[in-house]
Amino acid sequence: MNTIDKKIVDNIKKLGIDMIDEAKSGHPGIVLSAAPIIYTLYSRHLKVNPKADKWLNRDRFVMSAGHGSALLYSTLYMAGFDIDLNELKRFRQLGSITPGHPELNVTPGVDLSTGPLGQGFASAVGMAIAEKYLKTNYNIPKKYNIIDHKIYVLCGDGDLMEGISYEASSIAGNLKLDNLIVLYDSNNTTLDGKTNMTFNENIEKRFNALNWNYLLVKDGENIDQIDKALVKAKKSDKPTIIEIKTTLGNGSLLEGTNKVHGSPLTKEDLKQLNHKLGMREVKFTPSLEAVSYFREQIKNRVSLEYDRWNDMYNEFLDNSSDEIKRDFNILNNKTTIDTSNLVKFTKEIVEESLRESNGKILNELVNSNKLIIGGSADVATSTKTYITTGEDFSKNNYKGKNLWFGIREHAMGSILNGISTYNIKTFGSTFLSFSDYLKPAIRMSALMNLPVNYIFTHDSIDIGEDGPTHEPIEQLTMLRSIPNLDVYRPCDIKEIVGCFDLIYQNNKPSILILGRNKVETLKNTNYKKVKYGAYIIKPEKNDLTAIFISSGNNMNTTLELALKLEEKGYGVRVVSMPSINLFLKQDKAYKKEIIDNKSKIIFIEPTNNFELLSEFSNNCYTVFENKFGISAKKDDVLDYMNFSKQEILDKILYIFDIKED
Amino acid sequence: MNTIDKKIVDNIKKLGIDMIDEAKSGHPGIVLSAAPIIYTLYSRHLKVNPKADKWLNRDRFVMSAGHGSALLYSTLYMAGFDIDLNELKRFRQLGSITPGHPELNVTPGVDLSTGPLGQGFASAVGMAIAEKYLKTNYNIPKKYNIIDHKIYVLCGDGDLMEGISYEASSIAGNLKLDNLIVLYDSNNTTLDGKTNMTFNENIEKRFNALNWNYLLVKDGENIDQIDKALVKAKKSDKPTIIEIKTTLGNGSLLEGTNKVHGSPLTKEDLKQLNHKLGMREVKFTPSLEAVSYFREQIKNRVSLEYDRWNDMYNEFLDNSSDEIKRDFNILNNKTTIDTSNLVKFTKEIVEESLRESNGKILNELVNSNKLIIGGSADVATSTKTYITTGEDFSKNNYKGKNLWFGIREHAMGSILNGISTYNIKTFGSTFLSFSDYLKPAIRMSALMNLPVNYIFTHDSIDIGEDGPTHEPIEQLTMLRSIPNLDVYRPCDIKEIVGCFDLIYQNNKPSILILGRNKVETLKNTNYKKVKYGAYIIKPEKNDLTAIFISSGNNMNTTLELALKLEEKGYGVRVVSMPSINLFLKQDKAYKKEIIDNKSKIIFIEPTNNFELLSEFSNNCYTVFENKFGISAKKDDVLDYMNFSKQEILDKILYIFDIKED
Repeated sequence: MNTIDKKIVDNIKKLGIDMIDEAKSGHPGIVLSAAPIIYTLYSRHLKVNPKADKWLNRDRFVMSAGHGSALLYSTLYMAGFDIDLNELKRFRQLGSITPGHPELNVTPGVDLSTGPLGQGFASAVGMAIAEKYLKTNYNIPKKYNIIDHKIYVLCGDGDLMEGISYEASSIAGNLKLDNLIVLYDSNNTTLDGKTNMTFNENIEKRFNALNWNYLLVKDGENIDQIDKALVKAKKSDKPTIIEIKTTLGNGSLLEGTNKVHGSPLTKEDLKQLNHKLGMREVKFTPSLEAVSYFREQIKNRVSLEYDRWNDMYNEFLDNSSDEIKRDFNILNNKTTIDTSNLVKFTKEIVEESLRESNGKILNELVNSNKLIIGGSADVATSTKTYITTGEDFSKNNYKGKNLWFGIREHAMGSILNGISTYNIKTFGSTFLSFSDYLKPAIRMSALMNLPVNYIFTHDSIDIGEDGPTHEPIEQLTMLRSIPNLDVYRPCDIKEIVGCFDLIYQNNKPSILILGRNKVETLKNTNYKKVKYGAYIIKPEKNDLTAIFISSGNNMNTTLELALKLEEKGYGVRVVSMPSINLFLKQDKAYKKEIIDNKSKIIFIEPTNNFELLSEFSNNCYTVFENKFGISAKKDDVLDYMNFSKQEILDKILYIFDIKED
Repeated sequence: MNTIDKKIVDNIKKLGIDMIDEAKSGHPGIVLSAAPIIYTLYSRHLKVNPKADKWLNRDRFVMSAGHGSALLYSTLYMAGFDIDLNELKRFRQLGSITPGHPELNVTPGVDLSTGPLGQGFASAVGMAIAEKYLKTNYNIPKKYNIIDHKIYVLCGDGDLMEGISYEASSIAGNLKLDNLIVLYDSNNTTLDGKTNMTFNENIEKRFNALNWNYLLVKDGENIDQIDKALVKAKKSDKPTIIEIKTTLGNGSLLEGTNKVHGSPLTKEDLKQLNHKLGMREVKFTPSLEAVSYFREQIKNRVSLEYDRWNDMYNEFLDNSSDEIKRDFNILNNKTTIDTSNLVKFTKEIVEESLRESNGKILNELVNSNKLIIGGSADVATSTKTYITTGEDFSKNNYKGKNLWFGIREHAMGSILNGISTYNIKTFGSTFLSFSDYLKPAIRMSALMNLPVNYIFTHDSIDIGEDGPTHEPIEQLTMLRSIPNLDVYRPCDIKEIVGCFDLIYQNNKPSILILGRNKVETLKNTNYKKVKYGAYIIKPEKNDLTAIFISSGNNMNTTLELALKLEEKGYGVRVVSMPSINLFLKQDKAYKKEIIDNKSKIIFIEPTNNFELLSEFSNNCYTVFENKFGISAKKDDVLDYMNFSKQEILDKILYIFDIKED
């Protein structure tokens, strides 16, 4: 290794270790094993401009091993991103831009939030899909090469153990995503010990089987070897994984053991390490020579390309249609999708399932917007989210808007997250019951505030014959409990339109819950009121006895029962609540208008979301029993669940009768 | 193919198709593609006694492609299991023993509930682990070969696409589970179309990379080829996957297309299919010759072995210690784990984290019970669930009680499910935040009512520096919402003891939620009262102002605040609620004793479980704000979340002040 290269690598290591020591918290192992890898990438390959970290055509870097945050931040600082040395000192402290795991939109140069293993890898596959899609749809060959970059990942053993990385790599291989390069810090050590207890795979065969290019770097300290592998990888016509053999915690007294993974080094260890690296013991004193040399390397390599790209981009925009200008405004997060053409769907009465209504609306939206793409975990035929005029995204056609994920829900979620980091609006569908499989990815959408729209159909128990594994009971509770996520359960086509207005206006993660069975457009629903989360669709005619709150498939029955009870002299207000999450955000005055908590509130939904209300409050009730479903004809399932129309009526009358004492 | 073999296969197909036609619901594709596979297995290899379907030493069969239920039931009927022909006619109907997807404990001969793809495969790995563990720990070589059988799986393309099957197969390969044989119905077709859009792997390489034996059967209709492969597989010293090339919906007009996957055949198609198979059109009229020949095949092959095994087993038990007798009673579900030796942990005051307390108790339990085994998704060092005297379960030592799952939470869950089908009591640990990754498996534990104990530590936001990805906010809500699952959040070592008493008494799925930081044993907690889910640990001294409900790590603060407020003249009752789920099951009288809903109820837990209560009820309040956490020092995180002691006090005083109007 060059003296200066070594010096920079050692400074990266030292800074990372200093951060962990200062915070008394962090993961030194990967700092010491992977510093040469990340340095080689940033100094010689990664197309980034530290002064313009949101550059549309930059290469993306994903630290999938998110516990390597100290390594990433120290590298970003050294490389010249807008990170003050003080921020390194405040590693893992409140309000710093150097949190415990990398967070999107917090630290300049961080392209994805990571931490839960495997998901970074999968989201990088999404980024590679986004790059291919944008390149194929917007570039003008030989003239405007606006989108043309690579996606790099640094991952560890843990990432490769998680099933999601297998799912995502199978997709990447089949799609021939040659713009994806994974650097695998292969050190045979994880938190609990040596990986041979759990991980004894032939990585080359595994990735070859999935149509990847595999390269091996035997010495992870050898920058030239890493560099050569990167050069080769960039020429491959397949995605590439470079297995780089390293030693966890290289240079520490604990090197090669799991003890160096996740706890700060001891004073003694620090001392000998500083000595080994030839570093001063004073913390946070990086060599100015190392810093400036590193920064120059990047500048010399990228700045001209960056300037040229900017000129080209401006010329391209000048010569572009309004539609393309709008699309680039969307990509740069300056505007969002226009949904005004959906109003027409609110004009006519239809009788069809909500998944079908949604399919029509989605097709309309996608047809008029190049920047909405998505797909399904092999159930588009059932969820009705296939875009009939959209072409299929495949290795032979990166123009297609229909993504095919296979039966890989979790990878679907994380891939959508990756695509969304480009401000492309994505959707992904499966059955509500299987939303379980992608909960970890949905959480990351919410944490990163990415505009992913999850579409979950086959709500709810009335899907019938497929039985309890396919009948969602607790999934709504789970989804509604995720912070920063808008969950919608619209009751007719008009409300679906209202949902889509909000989904794109709010530009944040969202979930649409849709039934499989036919429902009729309701007279009093109002797409403009979906934004309040809940609104009155039938005011009480008599003195208020109770407020019925319902949504989705169950609104029809709820209204019918309300009318029947009003005939008997009760006063029943019916509230449509397409989104609890949005309703909870309204101001007190509005809430009070809708919900009078002096009266009884009865929730009519086949979900256990309201069980605690029924048990602990003295004014709220649910008519749903919290138990698993059963395989039977639709009506028999409802009987079994004591959720037939008659049973609901009986329960309501019983509730009416309860006297507060 | 033999005439009679063909006849039986055709009868299996015809019966399966009849069932789907009668139900007007089901999946004909796999019935027609995989009938020869399942027939070969049951007639020539599977060691089962249809008259003793719970035989401890039977081979296990897992229909991982759970939508193949009609195929399974028709085979089980033909093979002589206790299934009436009428039950086949009632396929997918309320109360039948032939539900839409296979369900454990519903149908004789069904060894696992399946449906959500990939999980059956992973649970079969668990069964293979169980077989190895029992065999190694209980057999007396050359004398009593009590446990000695194989685990067979039938899986489809979908199972292999799911990441969990990759995770589980990596574990199986590394553990050299040669008792596991997977029959892969390889037909290149899934619900949405041809698999080449999504699934284009070299299966041989993929499984070789994971240390499996791979065999190919080119003609899935050729019983002798399938048979030969099975003979080979049984001799392998590795787990084996047999890829069997078939045509989805073989013989249907739609054969080889996705259209034959999940909808009943048309009348026209049925007619030509019957003709092709040489079958009468009348439904449910299997050939008596086929039925009796099939049953004879199994009987001739197995009955002598079954009788000999029974004699051997009785002799073995006669010569066994009380401990071993007890263990076999546990395996046969006649008794459960004795937890009486845990009382000692309730006697002393300790100050340690709940994960540490739990680690001590768990070690004690596992040391005195051979039938408790478990492990961690590579975080045993942090979750403290490593059994120090337990040895590691590895390919060189199947005696070990410590299972190593690697960073594969989802496979861990499904593997524990598989082990638990043997009535072995299992545990598995990871951080609470990552419970997301195994939600699908937990749901299956609950659906099957299996005695899996999930241990989730690093509860909750006060874990601090690792930041929002690692800080659970909504996970408790998610877990508590799963039906038939006991979720425990004990507040001290005494309550942990109470939890373990219940976990083994109730013999059902459970979750233990444990904090990372130190807490002190509390004076008024009572391990015997955990069974009520909630109980008063501090009665109000003054007139009741409010009831504080808390649990886990937060009980200490709750008590402190209660005492402070009592000093100011308020009347505060403190309820410890280690398990909401159990509390909700108590009778009204008991509930009323604990919770007086005329008074204010304030929940003091860092979870959004109680948000709806706070919003919709007029008597319940939470002091927790529903948002994601942040990376910072513990106390700073609490400040940021407005959940410091002072903030909680302020919120309580504010709530006290709210007048009902």
